[in-house]
Amino acid sequence: MDSVLPPDGSLPQPPHQPGSYGPWRRLVVVGLGLIGGSFALAAKRAGLFSEIWGIDANHQSLAQAMALGVINRGAETLRQLMANLGDASPLGEGDCIYIAVPTRSVPAIIAELQASVDAKVTITDGASVKGSVVAALSDGGQKSVPANFIPGHPIAGSEQSGLTAARADLFAGKRCILCPDSAADSWHLARVTALWQQLGAQVHCMSALLHDQVFAATSHLPHLIAFSLVDTLAQKPYCDAIFHNAAGGFTGFTRIASSDPVMWRDIALANRDAVVACLDEFVANLLSLRTAMQAENAEALEAAFTRAKTARDQFLCAQTPAEGDAPR
Amino acid sequence: MDSVLPPDGSLPQPPHQPGSYGPWRRLVVVGLGLIGGSFALAAKRAGLFSEIWGIDANHQSLAQAMALGVINRGAETLRQLMANLGDASPLGEGDCIYIAVPTRSVPAIIAELQASVDAKVTITDGASVKGSVVAALSDGGQKSVPANFIPGHPIAGSEQSGLTAARADLFAGKRCILCPDSAADSWHLARVTALWQQLGAQVHCMSALLHDQVFAATSHLPHLIAFSLVDTLAQKPYCDAIFHNAAGGFTGFTRIASSDPVMWRDIALANRDAVVACLDEFVANLLSLRTAMQAENAEALEAAFTRAKTARDQFLCAQTPAEGDAPR
Repeated sequence: MDSVLPPDGSLPQPPHQPGSYGPWRRLVVVGLGLIGGSFALAAKRAGLFSEIWGIDANHQSLAQAMALGVINRGAETLRQLMANLGDASPLGEGDCIYIAVPTRSVPAIIAELQASVDAKVTITDGASVKGSVVAALSDGGQKSVPANFIPGHPIAGSEQSGLTAARADLFAGKRCILCPDSAADSWHLARVTALWQQLGAQVHCMSALLHDQVFAATSHLPHLIAFSLVDTLAQKPYCDAIFHNAAGGFTGFTRIASSDPVMWRDIALANRDAVVACLDEFVANLLSLRTAMQAENAEALEAAFTRAKTARDQFLCAQTPAEGDAPR
Repeated sequence: MDSVLPPDGSLPQPPHQPGSYGPWRRLVVVGLGLIGGSFALAAKRAGLFSEIWGIDANHQSLAQAMALGVINRGAETLRQLMANLGDASPLGEGDCIYIAVPTRSVPAIIAELQASVDAKVTITDGASVKGSVVAALSDGGQKSVPANFIPGHPIAGSEQSGLTAARADLFAGKRCILCPDSAADSWHLARVTALWQQLGAQVHCMSALLHDQVFAATSHLPHLIAFSLVDTLAQKPYCDAIFHNAAGGFTGFTRIASSDPVMWRDIALANRDAVVACLDEFVANLLSLRTAMQAENAEALEAAFTRAKTARDQFLCAQTPAEGDAPR
């Protein structure tokens, strides 16, 4: 499967002249959790939009976002927002819709937007899985992904979730991956690229396929492993002694097991094929270490541990400080 | 296997009157790496010993320890130290030998000490696995573990290794587990307990069997998993894209994969049975998540992730701040 991947360098890269694609008007954030709330706060601080509107099915999140000044106007649904525009003009050119709902809810929202808002509105999202969104919108290749939709994924987050964890600087210095479909409009791509750069992020483009394989490896499988390990240990009869004797290494190793279970359930299902493929490779490697232990094959163990340490130390050296937000 | 474990509370607990067992004379640290070096520095700062001697087969470590003032006297072997005592009296009551060499080298050193030093010398160690040390010294139950040897394991460390990573405060506020054998002399146990308390550690006793099962779960298996995951990813054709897009979550998750390969090779072999048993439970759990993903069983995934999050959040709440040295 790996051999069909285009090398990263052959993918179209976005232009690098922020601000040269006309001013923004309004921002509509759909889903006021950690990512949506942080996007609204960052956009507000950057002063790029005349108004920020929020949509969230949870009335409490909406009220909180209004009370905290994160949004100027809110509604529980897109339909409700549209029905109560008042003096405001309908959404059109210069307006941006940012979708920050759980991965599996994204396609339905984009389909609704496609049916109800002008094609000049720029639409982007922050879902952690991109292939499933593109596949749902293209109906398995039967139709085109909307040209005004630029799939995105900011590489930022926290094991905390919800609006109260949102921060205006969440994306500063972080990477944002864009996965424009072949049908994507270059004007919308340029605008979304410039927007992320103005929020302080470094924008990189890659195919949705490569994106999902890369993040299965670097994020989705590690979360699955951390959840699974803690779940395994919690079921042991002496789990109190285990957790009581956990030191800093264990605390850091399992930090991502405190992430939101519903969000990660959706990611595991949306990126199932890539995660399962990577999981199988990992289990095979782990079982080879088990075999080496049983055979007292010290050389095989030391060789594997040394390869891992070398790879990790090298990637840390190559990483710019701004990209890592956890201690090394 | 679990049912044969004594409950933690039924084990003998050490006395709690530091300093009431007579003064110390000299400390001999065997192995001047991170743990041995930190022990020497902590003991020096606490001013408990009249002199600190060091033994290390690596001439460079020895020279560095002398140059940095970590030790007053050094030798490459115990035999060499004994042959060059000069005006110093032979080791006896009030002297302490701290063994901080890789786990699998501990039994041979203790056997050598048993043959060459007075039984009034207090001997303890810092090896991460206790059952293999006790088993080797008791020759599978054929003889007694030396009564003056108190097996120990300070729950402190770093993914960095060597004398240059040593810190006088490495053990402050950390737990130190002691695993006295039934043949252990209570005077030596009391002295070692008091010594660790004077270095700022909280001392807890448990059986070597329970110790090894607990640390297989909370430390040894997590290291094996982290090494294995990074090794797996490093072999993928698009590993550059993977590591380039790794965020803070991955950095924290894999921090322990930068640990010393030789040390962890030895631990994996020394605690093989407990690690393999725990590994098998973990792999079974992970494969049940794989099955749930393939069957699109969202409920099973969410239930497992929720159990893990709940367990981890609870153990963090129960942990005193001093015990965790990594961000939560």
